[in-house]
Amino acid sequence: MNSNGDAATQAADGTLHFLRNPGKTRPRGGVVYLVGGGPGDPELLTLRAARLIASGDAIVYDHLIGAGIVDLAPAGAERHYVGKEAGSHTLPQQEINALLVQLARRGLSVIRLKGGDPFIFGRGGEEVEDLVKAGIPFEIVPGVTAASGAAAYSGIPLTHRDFAQACVFVTGHLKDGTCNLDWATLARPNQTVVIYMGVGALEEIGRKLIAHGLPANTPAAAIRHATTAAQQVVTGTIATLADQTRAAGIKPPTLIIVGKVVSLHDKLSWFPPLPARECSPAASAAG
Amino acid sequence: MNSNGDAATQAADGTLHFLRNPGKTRPRGGVVYLVGGGPGDPELLTLRAARLIASGDAIVYDHLIGAGIVDLAPAGAERHYVGKEAGSHTLPQQEINALLVQLARRGLSVIRLKGGDPFIFGRGGEEVEDLVKAGIPFEIVPGVTAASGAAAYSGIPLTHRDFAQACVFVTGHLKDGTCNLDWATLARPNQTVVIYMGVGALEEIGRKLIAHGLPANTPAAAIRHATTAAQQVVTGTIATLADQTRAAGIKPPTLIIVGKVVSLHDKLSWFPPLPARECSPAASAAG
Repeated sequence: MNSNGDAATQAADGTLHFLRNPGKTRPRGGVVYLVGGGPGDPELLTLRAARLIASGDAIVYDHLIGAGIVDLAPAGAERHYVGKEAGSHTLPQQEINALLVQLARRGLSVIRLKGGDPFIFGRGGEEVEDLVKAGIPFEIVPGVTAASGAAAYSGIPLTHRDFAQACVFVTGHLKDGTCNLDWATLARPNQTVVIYMGVGALEEIGRKLIAHGLPANTPAAAIRHATTAAQQVVTGTIATLADQTRAAGIKPPTLIIVGKVVSLHDKLSWFPPLPARECSPAASAAG
Repeated sequence: MNSNGDAATQAADGTLHFLRNPGKTRPRGGVVYLVGGGPGDPELLTLRAARLIASGDAIVYDHLIGAGIVDLAPAGAERHYVGKEAGSHTLPQQEINALLVQLARRGLSVIRLKGGDPFIFGRGGEEVEDLVKAGIPFEIVPGVTAASGAAAYSGIPLTHRDFAQACVFVTGHLKDGTCNLDWATLARPNQTVVIYMGVGALEEIGRKLIAHGLPANTPAAAIRHATTAAQQVVTGTIATLADQTRAAGIKPPTLIIVGKVVSLHDKLSWFPPLPARECSPAASAAG
């Protein structure tokens, strides 16, 4: 039972039942839920996100939302696709903000779905600032950020006591269109650098990191469509990854991970699970 | 429907039903699921995590797992508490690793529950390395990391195009017991620094950041028990936060956020939601 009065119960057949607000009425006025849609696989939505989507009056989403997630909304819910692919924004940010205000003012329960976590490169802060200005009630539901999804499903720990005591998230796609990062800070040993939306700038990223002192043989990985059946992982070094991703036809949305932890991928990779793992003779004997 | 054949469906009464592996048998041998338990509130578990816990044979968990999460396990499941509070590790890491191997060799479906995300300061990599050595099948389920939970529930965006183009995660509690961080890298403008397990070292953190050039009036926040009803938020500056948290009796587990984005807290704070928000006269009129 959480602070909203929701409860998860488990029936005798093992089915999980998630009941919405038992004993409480739904909010009657408009409200915006800024909801992290997770890294791709709908199974990586939070319980709260899944429930909110399933009870929303209007869903506002972009291209980073995994297939099947918007389908969880009620058949009668309004669906607003607002795009935001790199370089071809379907709706400018200010118009998205205005749309949220307008929907909430109609008294709707508005689910603003953002890929990953809304407060990590999601511009969630900007959208919420406009809601505050307009006096619209809101809540923020964190999500599994793309870095965590890509790391888990490629077997690359973002931190590791032997290799990386820090982890830095940056974006390869800044507000002014450049990739003008703080290279000296990124080119340090014993940390992991995760670059969101970095595949387009990968050549410059590799060149700048090397110029600022990171060894050219520092391991690096590109992970596309992380956590889904379409996941692709390419590993190499900061000197080679740009060429490798080009050869492999890796396009956005792709996450880049740079650091010694990438060397663990060969050993810790597990996705997709081998069918043999699920029912191997050795395992059966033990069970 | 995901790659494991699981499906989420919604009944006419709005209840969400999460069916386990319809049409597929469960794995028959031992397997370890390294599962992110999220930042605290059980509602912030992923669908996959909730389902795995609800079907596990053995749950191995530590003190960072939110109240109510272990209760989702079947009544007959083995429960192994392995502690790990700072300074008083109930089981050394190597014994935890050995326990996971031993449980899996008995043919059990083992849920290794870790607070937040297992690959961000969770030592998940170390545990999985030992599983690989022992030939135990495993899967990794990412979770909402504590930073995302604390940020969302305190109204502090971790990135913001006007204030922070990068976000760094570090831990205030290193393998060798010191807090010997890369201060020059952390004391940079236009980034957000998140310090996990940092409240004990807060005085040193503030002093070192200032000594390395970060302005003493840089905003900073301490968030304890993030996302739960017991959440406490203290905001100040890197010069004042150590004294403030001491005065407020803030103890671990507490997350520290440093950077200009903290100044948004006053404006964007929303948790716990005001009852008035749920059914205000103005909102009712609009609905």
